[in-house]
Amino acid sequence: MNYKSHFESALDKVRREGRYRVFADLARQAGAFPAAHHRDPAGVREVTVWCSNDYLGMGQHPDVLAAATEAVQTYGAGAGGTRNISGTTHLHVLLEAELASLHDKDQALVMSSGFVANEAAISTIAQLLPDCLILSDAYNHASMIAGVRHSGCEKQIFRHNDVAHLEQLLRAQPRERAKLIVFESVYSMDGDFGPIAEIVELAKRYNAMTFLDEVHAVGMYGAHGAGVAERDGLMAEIDVIQGTLAKAFGCMGGYIAADGAIIDAVRSHAPGFIFTSSLAPAVVGAALASVQYLKQASALRERHQERAACLKRRLHAAGLPVMPSPSHIVPLLVGEPRRCKEASDMLMAQYGIYIQPINYPTVQRGTERLRITPTPLHDDAVMDRLVEALGEVWSHLEIRLAA
Amino acid sequence: MNYKSHFESALDKVRREGRYRVFADLARQAGAFPAAHHRDPAGVREVTVWCSNDYLGMGQHPDVLAAATEAVQTYGAGAGGTRNISGTTHLHVLLEAELASLHDKDQALVMSSGFVANEAAISTIAQLLPDCLILSDAYNHASMIAGVRHSGCEKQIFRHNDVAHLEQLLRAQPRERAKLIVFESVYSMDGDFGPIAEIVELAKRYNAMTFLDEVHAVGMYGAHGAGVAERDGLMAEIDVIQGTLAKAFGCMGGYIAADGAIIDAVRSHAPGFIFTSSLAPAVVGAALASVQYLKQASALRERHQERAACLKRRLHAAGLPVMPSPSHIVPLLVGEPRRCKEASDMLMAQYGIYIQPINYPTVQRGTERLRITPTPLHDDAVMDRLVEALGEVWSHLEIRLAA
Repeated sequence: MNYKSHFESALDKVRREGRYRVFADLARQAGAFPAAHHRDPAGVREVTVWCSNDYLGMGQHPDVLAAATEAVQTYGAGAGGTRNISGTTHLHVLLEAELASLHDKDQALVMSSGFVANEAAISTIAQLLPDCLILSDAYNHASMIAGVRHSGCEKQIFRHNDVAHLEQLLRAQPRERAKLIVFESVYSMDGDFGPIAEIVELAKRYNAMTFLDEVHAVGMYGAHGAGVAERDGLMAEIDVIQGTLAKAFGCMGGYIAADGAIIDAVRSHAPGFIFTSSLAPAVVGAALASVQYLKQASALRERHQERAACLKRRLHAAGLPVMPSPSHIVPLLVGEPRRCKEASDMLMAQYGIYIQPINYPTVQRGTERLRITPTPLHDDAVMDRLVEALGEVWSHLEIRLAA
Repeated sequence: MNYKSHFESALDKVRREGRYRVFADLARQAGAFPAAHHRDPAGVREVTVWCSNDYLGMGQHPDVLAAATEAVQTYGAGAGGTRNISGTTHLHVLLEAELASLHDKDQALVMSSGFVANEAAISTIAQLLPDCLILSDAYNHASMIAGVRHSGCEKQIFRHNDVAHLEQLLRAQPRERAKLIVFESVYSMDGDFGPIAEIVELAKRYNAMTFLDEVHAVGMYGAHGAGVAERDGLMAEIDVIQGTLAKAFGCMGGYIAADGAIIDAVRSHAPGFIFTSSLAPAVVGAALASVQYLKQASALRERHQERAACLKRRLHAAGLPVMPSPSHIVPLLVGEPRRCKEASDMLMAQYGIYIQPINYPTVQRGTERLRITPTPLHDDAVMDRLVEALGEVWSHLEIRLAA
């Protein structure tokens, strides 16, 4: 057994498929976003970031930075333990109360990340129900798939956003069987919305629980930034809402909000929650400030939507293959991993524009893309340069234009 | 199907077994550790924390706080994305280089937590090897068990620290079969050391890979704080060293250090690493400063060991049932969950001493305990008060003394 050769051959396969990942070494500049410094062997240069999930630029908001700094100075760098063993700071208590209030639920529970929140909550909830069947949207995020798998429960995958297919699966089950429907409100890589109203309706009809991932929606949709379920008046109908503090809230960490019994059961049973150090005070303090700020920031949300709509319109006008997306996410189809990476490299090297190529396994093979995330801080001038650069790159690399 | 009743009955079971957890709401005071403010319905009062995993008090070290603050002000609150999609800041690159250097390995990879590092690395490494057999110590941490389970590979559990049993299992396998031995250098709840030299020897003889969890050792053992494997001159013999930034380093996050091909393979294949937002700049900056500081802090490590030895000696002298532990962890046996919680509650309410009760599933039933973690900042005066309080609580609650 030559161990090393197995790791090397796995990497060779990734390289042969053109999907070996090189992480861009960035230094974001608080106060100058979307500008950042990019470092590579040739040196350091300023670039414009067009692929951040700090969707509203809250990661550099003065209130958020002040709260992070104050938390460090007051409470220290780390929490010092798991939530149960000395790691619950008063900031954690306040943040969970704020998130419960945001989603109008009994309680909320904060975890290390959105990934951990999905994995831990889905697997634990399903395991606590007898003979639970999980019904999972085909495009669900890797973290939800991890939660489904680790539950050990039976699962059925319904075609993406296909409520007729979901109903067919539900109808085939006894009413008394435990059923958990897991889906998202905004699908990260396509930017389309999940059919929340229809799924809620089916869940009621067939007596199923609902688990909704709002990570690409919290902070950005709804009157208080609670997500698409808030916007659509459906928050109370969803059993478990899962969100992140790392995207529009600009910090890190994930959470669920739900009825008290559900939160308490996850809190008391999920290994991924119990056996891990709690979030650092700086992160918790910053997130609390960000959630509070975004509760009353409708103008920022409107500006965000306007920027996304404007960019989509301009890319269309330039004949570039924008994939249909009703949300703030703007995917541009390339359809081949090497070409996708070349386009990204050329944008960075020749135009100082940073858009990471999105290849398998993040998206399906053949749908490789540049995923663009305009924020309220991307003004007309940087957008002009982006559209022009993309046109030139598409032409130079002979990538297919819009049909 | 009444969903709520299932969550409630799971909680009732936890309550009936006397292991329902109430998180202590604490406000640590940077600069005053181990003092903290504890908040409950009766109000806020100052307590002495005796159960933190901020083992060396680095969570409040001025260099660490300054680095956290500078990172917030310079880079912002969050990293803004996954490591691959705009979330690799230059601080991440520097921290990984520092950790690789600390463990004298090619490369290191930082993750959301020590839990995630174990789960993601063990499951991915085992999956990349054909027909891998995982040999796992019976007392391994929940995060390692998660990694073993999620790999889907065959596993065999060897009795805790029993190298004869491990050899028996290894001998029964073909030499050419892939084998991964996973174990810890310091077991968290008992404070005993893993037999690293003997396991390394067996791994060589039977051609197995070794994966060593050093989370309760990094920062505290070895000339530069690289852990027990450094102290014993065995770092180069271990294939993968896993550590945390959340305990002796005082921040949050976890990592692995290993040969470049292993790190690159985990980086390229592990869902728990790929699909999650990267650590916040404040945390990464603080951790970098802490690792650098502890590389040259032998006096602090000596003081830490002296404090633990002193406390063990004094508890023994008082007739209290200290469980045998050669490390910095001082477990005091209670042996019953309700009594364990009562002792903890009485210490908090009557003496202002905070030691969380440790019950199942963190330890086996019948071995419920108070787990005490003296740090270099616990001076003789607070130790006097602790020993006296414990004697009174043991007497009042009629808990068994040392045999």
